[in-house]
Amino acid sequence: MKEISSPNNDLVKDIALLLEKSRVRKKKGLFVIEGLREILLAIQGSYDLEKILYCEEIISSDELDQIIGLREELNFELIKISLRVYQKLAHRKKTEGILAVSKFKSLDLKYIHLNDKPLILVAEASEKPGNIGALLRTADAANLDCVIIANPKTDVYNPNIIRSSVGCLFTNQVATGSTDEIIEFLNRKGINIYAAALNENSILYTNPDYRESSAIIVGTEDKGLSEKWLNESLEKIIIPMEGKIDSLNVSVSAAILIFEAKRQRAQSL
Amino acid sequence: MKEISSPNNDLVKDIALLLEKSRVRKKKGLFVIEGLREILLAIQGSYDLEKILYCEEIISSDELDQIIGLREELNFELIKISLRVYQKLAHRKKTEGILAVSKFKSLDLKYIHLNDKPLILVAEASEKPGNIGALLRTADAANLDCVIIANPKTDVYNPNIIRSSVGCLFTNQVATGSTDEIIEFLNRKGINIYAAALNENSILYTNPDYRESSAIIVGTEDKGLSEKWLNESLEKIIIPMEGKIDSLNVSVSAAILIFEAKRQRAQSL
Repeated sequence: MKEISSPNNDLVKDIALLLEKSRVRKKKGLFVIEGLREILLAIQGSYDLEKILYCEEIISSDELDQIIGLREELNFELIKISLRVYQKLAHRKKTEGILAVSKFKSLDLKYIHLNDKPLILVAEASEKPGNIGALLRTADAANLDCVIIANPKTDVYNPNIIRSSVGCLFTNQVATGSTDEIIEFLNRKGINIYAAALNENSILYTNPDYRESSAIIVGTEDKGLSEKWLNESLEKIIIPMEGKIDSLNVSVSAAILIFEAKRQRAQSL
Repeated sequence: MKEISSPNNDLVKDIALLLEKSRVRKKKGLFVIEGLREILLAIQGSYDLEKILYCEEIISSDELDQIIGLREELNFELIKISLRVYQKLAHRKKTEGILAVSKFKSLDLKYIHLNDKPLILVAEASEKPGNIGALLRTADAANLDCVIIANPKTDVYNPNIIRSSVGCLFTNQVATGSTDEIIEFLNRKGINIYAAALNENSILYTNPDYRESSAIIVGTEDKGLSEKWLNESLEKIIIPMEGKIDSLNVSVSAAILIFEAKRQRAQSL
């Protein structure tokens, strides 16, 4: 088995670049996953892993056996790395002890498979990876049919998104697209569009019937949703703000809207 | 007016310590607020400001006039500081240009004023200041009667809490106490306790009637709520988790629970 002990090894440098640069990830179609739980979720989510790197000083022998067992079915290269190399690459420098290099999956809307009466979240262009991660975590808990990121500012394989999603990037159906593409997609599938907006003519978020095919659209905290979404929506919906500050964190607003839809759907059974 | 240009000035060193050390804040009963919006919310929330420090290179003249105007009613010392001093103390080094030193308010439960049929959030001991900040922001939006932090691991005047709450630390009624003190307080006031818990005998969070006096109790993400809360609760409530990962961010869970209570209360009108 290959072993790498020097942080100056070429593969180590390549992986460091995959972690740092969106441009490099896109060019190579590869990204890095840190942590056993995240790696197992990616495998469950049919991601194609090229390499798994482990650090014997940190990973437990049970966990290592689990990974070695996976090689019977999956075709990845297993590489032993030194503690110095691991700590150069890993965010959680003292735990986990495992990293993977995985191929991208296509995030094109055409690969999205929808069940009857889907419930979808569309998030416009959050600059904060932590916000996208939190949205993905909520989407997992609610078992949404799909999460669509409109006009993403970073690729979704940004290590901060993976980490803040606690691996839920791999458990959700995820797609990206331009606003026009997504609106065309939703209209073609006959999905009602509900745009979260602090507008004068918005209705209370508890009023629509989300038991039909529904997409909930949330914008960024500072700018809100772009005009197009407001024009294309069946309803603009609002969470009543009764405080001194007129804003909720976007992942919090999205969760309130999604779980209202879930509540209605549970009660209709 | 006093002017400070050197980062080695004694007052500057004192303020740096207030920012860094909970122990120093508690000993002196003082803490630091950064940003005009946050300072104005603290004034609205009847906080007693000792000093306001501004940096002419950053603050706008309108904003400075607004602060000078406040001196007619409030009794704080106004100090001009150099850019170097500001950047030593401030987190947002290029914006705002204003800091205040404020006295603590008492966070004893006995100062809490409750209206008829209050809705209260109790959060147990989150180690992450960002989580407490996010809870306070949600509590502001929902106009909760009060937020109680049980067994806080840090004082609530931690600069990260103030920043992540976007000033909502000052817009909410906030108290702290031990679990026993809080349970005694809630029982004495006849407030129903709903403990968020992933337990076997938990009921769906949409089932209770939150229109009566209600306290929603949330624990930490890793450990959940302590045993005492489970024993003392009227009901243990659960948000159904339908994904691969059995956890939501604590501020997200709290928001889902609080806004369900708000939804019920709005519909009973």
